[in-house]
Amino acid sequence: MASTQNVGRFLEDFHQGEIIRHATPRTLTSGDQALYTALYGSRFAVQSSAEFARGIGYEAMPVDDLLVFHVVFGKTVPDISLNAVANLGYAECRWLRPVYAGDTLSATSEVLGVKENSSRQAGVVHVRSRGCNQRGEVVLEFVRWVMVRKRDAASAITPAAPPSLRESLAPGDLGSAVPRLNPAAYDDGLAGSARRFGAYGIGEKIDHVDGMTVEEAEHQLATRLYQNTAKVHFNQFAQAGDRFGRRLIYGGHVISLARALSFNGLANGFHVAAINGGRHVNPLFAGGTVFAWSEVLDKQRLPGRDDIGALRLRTIATQDLPCASFPQPGAADSDGRILLDLDWWLVAPI
Amino acid sequence: MASTQNVGRFLEDFHQGEIIRHATPRTLTSGDQALYTALYGSRFAVQSSAEFARGIGYEAMPVDDLLVFHVVFGKTVPDISLNAVANLGYAECRWLRPVYAGDTLSATSEVLGVKENSSRQAGVVHVRSRGCNQRGEVVLEFVRWVMVRKRDAASAITPAAPPSLRESLAPGDLGSAVPRLNPAAYDDGLAGSARRFGAYGIGEKIDHVDGMTVEEAEHQLATRLYQNTAKVHFNQFAQAGDRFGRRLIYGGHVISLARALSFNGLANGFHVAAINGGRHVNPLFAGGTVFAWSEVLDKQRLPGRDDIGALRLRTIATQDLPCASFPQPGAADSDGRILLDLDWWLVAPI
Amino acid sequence: MASTQNVGRFLEDFHQGEIIRHATPRTLTSGDQALYTALYGSRFAVQSSAEFARGIGYEAMPVDDLLVFHVVFGKTVPDISLNAVANLGYAECRWLRPVYAGDTLSATSEVLGVKENSSRQAGVVHVRSRGCNQRGEVVLEFVRWVMVRKRDAASAITPAAPPSLRESLAPGDLGSAVPRLNPAAYDDGLAGSARRFGAYGIGEKIDHVDGMTVEEAEHQLATRLYQNTAKVHFNQFAQAGDRFGRRLIYGGHVISLARALSFNGLANGFHVAAINGGRHVNPLFAGGTVFAWSEVLDKQRLPGRDDIGALRLRTIATQDLPCASFPQPGAADSDGRILLDLDWWLVAPI
Repeated sequence: MASTQNVGRFLEDFHQGEIIRHATPRTLTSGDQALYTALYGSRFAVQSSAEFARGIGYEAMPVDDLLVFHVVFGKTVPDISLNAVANLGYAECRWLRPVYAGDTLSATSEVLGVKENSSRQAGVVHVRSRGCNQRGEVVLEFVRWVMVRKRDAASAITPAAPPSLRESLAPGDLGSAVPRLNPAAYDDGLAGSARRFGAYGIGEKIDHVDGMTVEEAEHQLATRLYQNTAKVHFNQFAQAGDRFGRRLIYGGHVISLARALSFNGLANGFHVAAINGGRHVNPLFAGGTVFAWSEVLDKQRLPGRDDIGALRLRTIATQDLPCASFPQPGAADSDGRILLDLDWWLVAPI
Repeated sequence: MASTQNVGRFLEDFHQGEIIRHATPRTLTSGDQALYTALYGSRFAVQSSAEFARGIGYEAMPVDDLLVFHVVFGKTVPDISLNAVANLGYAECRWLRPVYAGDTLSATSEVLGVKENSSRQAGVVHVRSRGCNQRGEVVLEFVRWVMVRKRDAASAITPAAPPSLRESLAPGDLGSAVPRLNPAAYDDGLAGSARRFGAYGIGEKIDHVDGMTVEEAEHQLATRLYQNTAKVHFNQFAQAGDRFGRRLIYGGHVISLARALSFNGLANGFHVAAINGGRHVNPLFAGGTVFAWSEVLDKQRLPGRDDIGALRLRTIATQDLPCASFPQPGAADSDGRILLDLDWWLVAPI
Repeated sequence: MASTQNVGRFLEDFHQGEIIRHATPRTLTSGDQALYTALYGSRFAVQSSAEFARGIGYEAMPVDDLLVFHVVFGKTVPDISLNAVANLGYAECRWLRPVYAGDTLSATSEVLGVKENSSRQAGVVHVRSRGCNQRGEVVLEFVRWVMVRKRDAASAITPAAPPSLRESLAPGDLGSAVPRLNPAAYDDGLAGSARRFGAYGIGEKIDHVDGMTVEEAEHQLATRLYQNTAKVHFNQFAQAGDRFGRRLIYGGHVISLARALSFNGLANGFHVAAINGGRHVNPLFAGGTVFAWSEVLDKQRLPGRDDIGALRLRTIATQDLPCASFPQPGAADSDGRILLDLDWWLVAPI
């Protein structure tokens, strides 16, 4: 922080156990909610209607879960991933409390582990990031790991192994961001589907049918709204010299597009409770059309809750590849066109 | 609603007299109002300034009439026109109550008529759609008719004729969305023109002068803001195989552009009271520049109102064709460049 | 105002001493604030967080200073510069009071001087424009001068010299838009930098490092949000016949981009107190990537204030030219790529 410009941290600057406070607390408003709708076209009734939300038990119309994620993630970028060679993975991401217009989010990250690569040019850092509201309550937390360059290949790094991470969050970890609902007040017609938690079967595959083409202006507006400063999303002059020659679209933009598309088939999955893991298989570029499909991996009742249950889904997003035949990463016919492979928990009313 | 994905209704699924409840109630906020301004650059004082609006008698700064229309229309798309071959027409569209930030709109449609085409491949459905606020009050209603595909050409359709529709709404149908105004408090200088209701003459033609070029990102942001799910607006991958090879811009986007352009010449026409009918003569594509002109078809005092009057206008919008010479649909020199032919009632202070 | 369309004023229509009231008062909301963030990605804590702002002494999260400028400037365009051949300069621009969501801005301009060119085809008009809130308090004022066409070259113009303008505003002119701050409550970590007023030295040069590419949709959304009606920004059909063949990007868009980029190096310069002068050296076109650097020209304590000080900066913005070597207007290697040369005062906590 003592230098004039932020040049980001290098591998040497991360120390296990350190808590990094990130800059720029952010008050979310109905303006952010409207922009989020304009960017993705999401149609979940809970996040679209204050009347619907209050009718089932929320204080107000909650801010979309992924908007909360993007804002918290954006704050971590200048300190965690400005010198990142790659975002390697996510784990143990969960939403703990609802966020409403007027709430102010700030973020911290705890360094969980640091490990040098055998090349000694770079290494892997694990951090657990937390987003808090103005009362200091954690509303979101997630682990991510990134490959970060070293400032000096010769410098010594003391390896510090991260804790083992869970392959999936458990039912007891889910749903605390959802107030006790009144399922009788939940109107399936207004929500857009008669299929609730009970109607989905493990192994069921759902094509989300629709496609959404992405423009440069759209992903730039989105990523700036999140105050995410990663250079690759905004600077065509620099990207022209990159191997792709193009601006890379923020991976979270693809997650939000897939989530919005998933309304067609999962209209009652109104809350993203957790992300178990995710992989950005290929980058998305402007002009590409995003499609998605999901498979139900598991379904679980939540301890102490008779109002909501959780569907564990694998959602695949593609570029210029409709999903009626459920394309898989690694398959020859989908080569290069799989964007995202996401393992997450959605909450639906029972 | 029992199927997983929404595949839309076919002609067989419409039954005269049926009331269809549409999904996703929507709370409109100052965020939506700001986005609407950014999308069209509208400058009417009543919708731009809470002080101006309250000063003349509104409770608050009303939501732009066409934003209300687009949101209600958007809700009807998944149920009415997802399998539409064409939007054929509008009639009897009128605004009944003001909408303010914080109001929640939901929509229903009543099936007025169903008629099979002679080909038996498709048919025409008439519906009357209504948008209601959170108190159940109708804020907007309109009739539209669309050509919808049949699921099976062989299936039998019982013809049900729609009621006859009025060619124009009457003065008594207009103005209920405008509170009793204090015309003395209406400041012409702040509104942008000294020409009020009395200054316009029947037969007068007004070139709106300015042009507005449309980008793909802009119409997509708009159409998603309205939660309109019509595939042709968003999916370049599919549209590439269409006869135009391009994404079609939502016809309502053209109406809003024409309305915003009309400020130059009709600055005191602060309220869209009704649309008698409209025709999208040609589709607009991104990169096109929209111009508009209007003719005063009629002017009427409203029963029981000495504060406002209504101008019946025909507004023509064009693509890449300035309107100083008032181009007409069907004329050789405007071939393919007329976008919109709209017959509507604007309210202005007396 | 008596004509139907606004055709703008010509040189003959400006008279020294006249006060012109501009149309369309505008209520700013949290929606405008969210859009501003999406358009530029600005990250100053004071304008991003209601908690941060209130904690140091503001009533609420203030509207970004440049958003206030753009809205007031936009109102003046239809009356001042619709027939402008060129925007020649700015002076004595200062922010006098904070603006919060819910405030309504209106604008007036006082004609300071009128002078015909030797060609008699056009002339220069100086105006002082003021933006007022709903209580009639001036929140912003600035002088600008524009070259305006004559309606008729033969008409006689009585020359009226403008008052002499100050080359720079003085410390006593600065800071009235900032409430008395509690510097101990100002959290450097949340603000993003430990460098406060005292840490900057006169003559210091700061590369703002990052680059931002601009899309047509982005500058159009911005300029419409400001209700700025200058035709060159929106009408590609007309611009195709112009010498550039392109839409010109509003110069204020470049100022806002440079301001947002300046966060990297000036994170605690949370308030734009004044613009002493500015020059749009070259136009920006869509597809260009904007960079910026700044030099500290002066630093001053403010009379009666021990909480804040002011840094006088020269900020240069460029197109497709990174600023690590501090490119200067007029230098051969930056030919055509300098966009902006701005002289301004930023306020930072002591």
